[in-house]
Amino acid sequence: MTTSTSTMPIFKRRESDARSYCRGFDTVFTSARNAEMTDAQGRTYIDFLAGCSSLNYGHNDPDMKAALVDYIMDDGVAHGLDMHTGAKGAFIETFETHILKPRSMDHKLMFVGPTGANAVEAAIKIARKSTGRTNVIAFTNGFHGVTQGALAATGNSYHRGGAGAPLSGVTRLPYDGYMGKDVDTADLLEQMLLDASSGLDAPAAILLETVQGEGGLNAASGPWVRRIAELAKKHGALLIIDDIQAGCGRTGSFFSFDDMDVQPDIVTMAKSLSGFGLPMGLVLVRADHDVMGPAEHNGTFRGNNHAFVTARVAIEKFWSNDTLKTDIKRRAKLIEDGLKTIADMVPGAYLKGRGMMRGVDVGSGDLAGAICAEAFENGLIVETSGPNDEVVKILAPLTIEDGTLAKGLDILIQAAAAKTETTKIAAE
Amino acid sequence: MTTSTSTMPIFKRRESDARSYCRGFDTVFTSARNAEMTDAQGRTYIDFLAGCSSLNYGHNDPDMKAALVDYIMDDGVAHGLDMHTGAKGAFIETFETHILKPRSMDHKLMFVGPTGANAVEAAIKIARKSTGRTNVIAFTNGFHGVTQGALAATGNSYHRGGAGAPLSGVTRLPYDGYMGKDVDTADLLEQMLLDASSGLDAPAAILLETVQGEGGLNAASGPWVRRIAELAKKHGALLIIDDIQAGCGRTGSFFSFDDMDVQPDIVTMAKSLSGFGLPMGLVLVRADHDVMGPAEHNGTFRGNNHAFVTARVAIEKFWSNDTLKTDIKRRAKLIEDGLKTIADMVPGAYLKGRGMMRGVDVGSGDLAGAICAEAFENGLIVETSGPNDEVVKILAPLTIEDGTLAKGLDILIQAAAAKTETTKIAAE
Amino acid sequence: MTTSTSTMPIFKRRESDARSYCRGFDTVFTSARNAEMTDAQGRTYIDFLAGCSSLNYGHNDPDMKAALVDYIMDDGVAHGLDMHTGAKGAFIETFETHILKPRSMDHKLMFVGPTGANAVEAAIKIARKSTGRTNVIAFTNGFHGVTQGALAATGNSYHRGGAGAPLSGVTRLPYDGYMGKDVDTADLLEQMLLDASSGLDAPAAILLETVQGEGGLNAASGPWVRRIAELAKKHGALLIIDDIQAGCGRTGSFFSFDDMDVQPDIVTMAKSLSGFGLPMGLVLVRADHDVMGPAEHNGTFRGNNHAFVTARVAIEKFWSNDTLKTDIKRRAKLIEDGLKTIADMVPGAYLKGRGMMRGVDVGSGDLAGAICAEAFENGLIVETSGPNDEVVKILAPLTIEDGTLAKGLDILIQAAAAKTETTKIAAE
Amino acid sequence: MTTSTSTMPIFKRRESDARSYCRGFDTVFTSARNAEMTDAQGRTYIDFLAGCSSLNYGHNDPDMKAALVDYIMDDGVAHGLDMHTGAKGAFIETFETHILKPRSMDHKLMFVGPTGANAVEAAIKIARKSTGRTNVIAFTNGFHGVTQGALAATGNSYHRGGAGAPLSGVTRLPYDGYMGKDVDTADLLEQMLLDASSGLDAPAAILLETVQGEGGLNAASGPWVRRIAELAKKHGALLIIDDIQAGCGRTGSFFSFDDMDVQPDIVTMAKSLSGFGLPMGLVLVRADHDVMGPAEHNGTFRGNNHAFVTARVAIEKFWSNDTLKTDIKRRAKLIEDGLKTIADMVPGAYLKGRGMMRGVDVGSGDLAGAICAEAFENGLIVETSGPNDEVVKILAPLTIEDGTLAKGLDILIQAAAAKTETTKIAAE
Repeated sequence: MTTSTSTMPIFKRRESDARSYCRGFDTVFTSARNAEMTDAQGRTYIDFLAGCSSLNYGHNDPDMKAALVDYIMDDGVAHGLDMHTGAKGAFIETFETHILKPRSMDHKLMFVGPTGANAVEAAIKIARKSTGRTNVIAFTNGFHGVTQGALAATGNSYHRGGAGAPLSGVTRLPYDGYMGKDVDTADLLEQMLLDASSGLDAPAAILLETVQGEGGLNAASGPWVRRIAELAKKHGALLIIDDIQAGCGRTGSFFSFDDMDVQPDIVTMAKSLSGFGLPMGLVLVRADHDVMGPAEHNGTFRGNNHAFVTARVAIEKFWSNDTLKTDIKRRAKLIEDGLKTIADMVPGAYLKGRGMMRGVDVGSGDLAGAICAEAFENGLIVETSGPNDEVVKILAPLTIEDGTLAKGLDILIQAAAAKTETTKIAAE
Repeated sequence: MTTSTSTMPIFKRRESDARSYCRGFDTVFTSARNAEMTDAQGRTYIDFLAGCSSLNYGHNDPDMKAALVDYIMDDGVAHGLDMHTGAKGAFIETFETHILKPRSMDHKLMFVGPTGANAVEAAIKIARKSTGRTNVIAFTNGFHGVTQGALAATGNSYHRGGAGAPLSGVTRLPYDGYMGKDVDTADLLEQMLLDASSGLDAPAAILLETVQGEGGLNAASGPWVRRIAELAKKHGALLIIDDIQAGCGRTGSFFSFDDMDVQPDIVTMAKSLSGFGLPMGLVLVRADHDVMGPAEHNGTFRGNNHAFVTARVAIEKFWSNDTLKTDIKRRAKLIEDGLKTIADMVPGAYLKGRGMMRGVDVGSGDLAGAICAEAFENGLIVETSGPNDEVVKILAPLTIEDGTLAKGLDILIQAAAAKTETTKIAAE
Repeated sequence: MTTSTSTMPIFKRRESDARSYCRGFDTVFTSARNAEMTDAQGRTYIDFLAGCSSLNYGHNDPDMKAALVDYIMDDGVAHGLDMHTGAKGAFIETFETHILKPRSMDHKLMFVGPTGANAVEAAIKIARKSTGRTNVIAFTNGFHGVTQGALAATGNSYHRGGAGAPLSGVTRLPYDGYMGKDVDTADLLEQMLLDASSGLDAPAAILLETVQGEGGLNAASGPWVRRIAELAKKHGALLIIDDIQAGCGRTGSFFSFDDMDVQPDIVTMAKSLSGFGLPMGLVLVRADHDVMGPAEHNGTFRGNNHAFVTARVAIEKFWSNDTLKTDIKRRAKLIEDGLKTIADMVPGAYLKGRGMMRGVDVGSGDLAGAICAEAFENGLIVETSGPNDEVVKILAPLTIEDGTLAKGLDILIQAAAAKTETTKIAAE
Repeated sequence: MTTSTSTMPIFKRRESDARSYCRGFDTVFTSARNAEMTDAQGRTYIDFLAGCSSLNYGHNDPDMKAALVDYIMDDGVAHGLDMHTGAKGAFIETFETHILKPRSMDHKLMFVGPTGANAVEAAIKIARKSTGRTNVIAFTNGFHGVTQGALAATGNSYHRGGAGAPLSGVTRLPYDGYMGKDVDTADLLEQMLLDASSGLDAPAAILLETVQGEGGLNAASGPWVRRIAELAKKHGALLIIDDIQAGCGRTGSFFSFDDMDVQPDIVTMAKSLSGFGLPMGLVLVRADHDVMGPAEHNGTFRGNNHAFVTARVAIEKFWSNDTLKTDIKRRAKLIEDGLKTIADMVPGAYLKGRGMMRGVDVGSGDLAGAICAEAFENGLIVETSGPNDEVVKILAPLTIEDGTLAKGLDILIQAAAAKTETTKIAAE
């Protein structure tokens, strides 16, 4: 690979060492369309990362693009704090019509600072204020962001260490499946909730992802999530589902919990919500827990009007009928087949995740990393996940053309073959 | 005012009660240009709020707008996580050329989640990691955001109460002028730092705004800031200047501390950085404190490429020569004169702030609120500030046309006259 | 019962509502000898509470009493801060000879404020300072005291609630047996320690009781404790065994872990250490973790010289040969037989604890309370334990005469019979 | 000095490095009477330390001693948890008669674990529970103990560092006189309480010592304490006076605040309360703040019956008439004169404290330490105080014979003369 020579030296000279993805994908990208990105040398890459699930509808969707350009050309309000704007009103109406009403959700929309972490921070504050309690239950391998409140709920030790100070206010419990197939970890939660001497302080909230995107694509079962929801309700805690990475269609339906027969008290959203990759954060909160006073959780960029424009188009285009859901189902099968091929190459490897949030645990971070690096050499952007980066994770745009998906899977399978072959040879 | 009848009911029905600015400015805005906003009824308002200093260059600057539309039309990368993009590289180069180099700053650029709060969270984490200490010194009336780490440093009790849990890790000390003219509050800081039994834990950082935008436009003197900087250095703490609201020209120069002969270890930026009101956050950190590892402080929207495009244009257009600085100086004088007229109407009232970050303390939140409400009736968007909202605050775009500025000041003066007259009559 | 009329009104008038044991045992005690207490009316009670295991050698042991009176008569130093005294030196030498040397323990003696809670606070501080970590792992149903640091490690929600503020710095995990017989809870600990994304911060210490005295007489198995010890060692955490209630012979040997083949890094002691019921606290810490500097953990009453005098006699009299151990074994069997008789009366009841730290779980706090109240009417002091006070707990002096023990057990059995009969009748 | 050769090696071999006073006073004490201690070699020392104010009535007072021995000989209850005992009842009645009633105090007595730190921990918990707030205001140079809750309120950085973790829940403000004579530090407290944006969370309690025993004998003025009391009341905070070191006559009256016209909501007591140097802790709490439920703040040694016996005698003997008060006044004058003599030897030296809680600030810890070491060589036990140990502190028994006091002062003056002479010579 010769792209590194073309990388502008300005990044090395002036960008903080905290930069990360650019290290693994060491080129300068300039343009992108649906599932493909092009760099300054004109080379095109298939994108199986999709902004970590922020580009579920691909790059530069033409309809969103047109609407956004029109809005800008008309001097539409770009920044209006949290004042009413036409763009905001139109988004809320669309969201109500296509998302909330069909699900009989009475939730209010609370626009927060345009990041997922901000949505999680707000959700935790709402739960604490609404219940008068402080303890938040979060799970092993959960990832909820790196600002102090969200980071306390995040499991990853590398990120936690970045705090430089102890994190508090969160009790950690084992996620579904963490103790093996024979143990229902909800039993432990229930016992600790019932036991007046367990040391578990009465929780303000139980916070979970239905699929742990950063934690290794662990997918909770519907019954487990439903039981957690019941325990939350019974013990006066709010159920917060962090749908930042798993939401917006990633698992096959708009919300990741659509088929689980639960109604969370709070849902956090960000990433693909704007549809176009623009920063946007949102908290959905049941009307009776909508307890934050005016500006009590404030912020300058609550309400990114450009994002409202594209988000509205995204909902209308993709969630007013079932076309996308059908597409996802078909593509998910293709991905599953591809990953099974890889799993067959690595003893002990197994598939993880669900919908188009899938991966294969190849048992070691070194191997997974090598496969991804090899794939990038061959024109595919794909990343690892999991506590030890041992999962090769596919987060392709939901809108990826079937042919491009097949091509990307081929590259990945070849990369896996090359690296497992290498490993075998080295071992011999 | 009849605008309320035209407000779309969707907001009331579905937007969280946490919404705030829309309550005082109860109409639906649709378009905006430089210092004027237009609502759905076609009514135009002069904007003395400017997105709380997020729109220093006005709404929809034509050069930024053109560059942004071109970028979108060319399918420029909208979202690329923190991968290298051409837009990012160009921004960094421009920022280095026009901002860092002329000031001999060796700082690195750390792109963080696109909010000011995220920049503050990152800054605190950097300071803690770099020093191995946890205590952060912040000041009375400081405002740094409402996520848990930033909120601990924020003074406002209403926002602090929103946490629903005790906040820790911050020691609060009196800001410049807090104890009256005869007491240099830096003396107290110094004594506590020197005293092994003061109870002040060795600080990781001292965090301050040079002008407290939300805290009532208190402006610290240069000598005080310099002394704090020296104390920080002597005692091994990092000096963090939160320039989110006061930066980007608001006080007359790019950084609010440009004339103070201090070089902060860390500067936090957001609000007007993108130039166009798009979400963007940035931490400037001296190279030797650039200690965060790859992705240690991560986030999906680090690197809003649309914002990079407009931010580059903003720097090039406004900070490659002294035109804007000259304009600010002239306009600041107009504002000062206008505010003096108001101050003369209210016994005990006095001016606050500096540059184009000015206000008048009218002694009561009720009066200040009444003035702003009256002004809005007459076509001016203007807000209050301070612990009891007792300061009428002007944050007009730096680029406001002189005529528009004069017109806005007239509306404000008339509003003040009407409300002080009312008060007098009521008192008689 | 008519004793309440004899209770001095001064207690009700002036003693805080925080008083507790005096409510269940509502009389005024004046004198006591070995296993019997006498009240102001001259009524004598058998003592199956023994100061919650603070009077393992009974009340007013004649040898300790004689030595103490001699010491006082000779104007022995009563209070000497932590200066060297003859009484202290003699105690340490005796403790070294009969306790430490036979076990090849290199531990240092750190005299702390004369309470168990203070010993736990010191132990936690030592672990944090020695490891540079802050997280302490404690277990469900653990009880370690009610000062802020110790209370964070205590599981009981009533006591935790008394803090009036969130408690932090402790991770709670399930104790041995908490998840039923089929789950080894050490597996969960191990997995979380190995998993870089479990959210379990690297622990400074693992803190446990081998038998949970307040938590319901749950007894950990030797293999479980040994495995915890191994995990602590492997992962750089200190093992703290809180032997405050279970130590000093209560389970059959001087330390409760004597037969478990583990050597804790830190042991906390109090309660029966002085032998005479006098306040005394002690931390045993391995020499290489003896990291507290001079007075870094200080306190006025470190070193209660009267307690040193009686503690020395206690060690010499009871731990220089095996007589007491033999006695405990025999008495423990008598207690076990008596409790089995009670267990047979209550469907589902079962025995808990080990050694002379035994009880019977009768399934409900109401029934257990009723049995204890009935027993007190008939001259027996006995208390409940457990998260819902559902365990009738026997903590008789280890030195109780066999006849007195039998008599006390008879009273308890009769009380259980009466109350279970009542329950049956009521149920019919 | 040759005493070190006579020190038993057991201390060095087995006592923790945390031991402290024994380092400066390196001999083995065996007996003591009033103001004199005798070591194993038969050497007698005058005691100007008095157990850090724990022996206000001297060592082994004959009346207390007689009562205690009688009690023990009669098999009086030594340990009864917090059950009613005759000894406890008699103490409470005496305390009510001679201490509470004459001051019209309606306070309840809450017996806590027998240390001052435990009393402070309980006081903070009461305040938090009673107010529903968590923040506690404490002052520069305050010392309240080293368990986690109390340590958070303690100013000393060496002790704070011993926590090994950040301490929270306390806001630190400058004590009376901290900012020089021209600044009333209560002004800062008032302003921060009134300012909704000061960052000072509404306090549960304001905690202070009227004379800071460990912090350098800083004495607050009556008006300052009164103003703090008024601010506490006005802002819904409880006033906690920590009278552990300054109480029991040390400043001239039973409580250190007797002449200040304030009535604290809570008073913490320990040290000299038992009269005999036995461990005892007590919280006095106004009836309407007596909110702790039964055993909510519990502990094994609440209620040290031996201490009740001696404490009762102490109250009866010393506080049923004014003899001791008269004696203290006279002896305080002698001490003041002696310290003035020393102050005259050291440029810049000045007296600190009040009553028989006095010292001289000699400007350097080295000099103060050298004076104390020299004094010990010559038969006087005396210690330093202050953030840098720069104060030579006299805490002689209140009952010291005038002749012994004079003799001790002579030794101290000679030591000061020798060391200042040395310093002068060295400087020349």
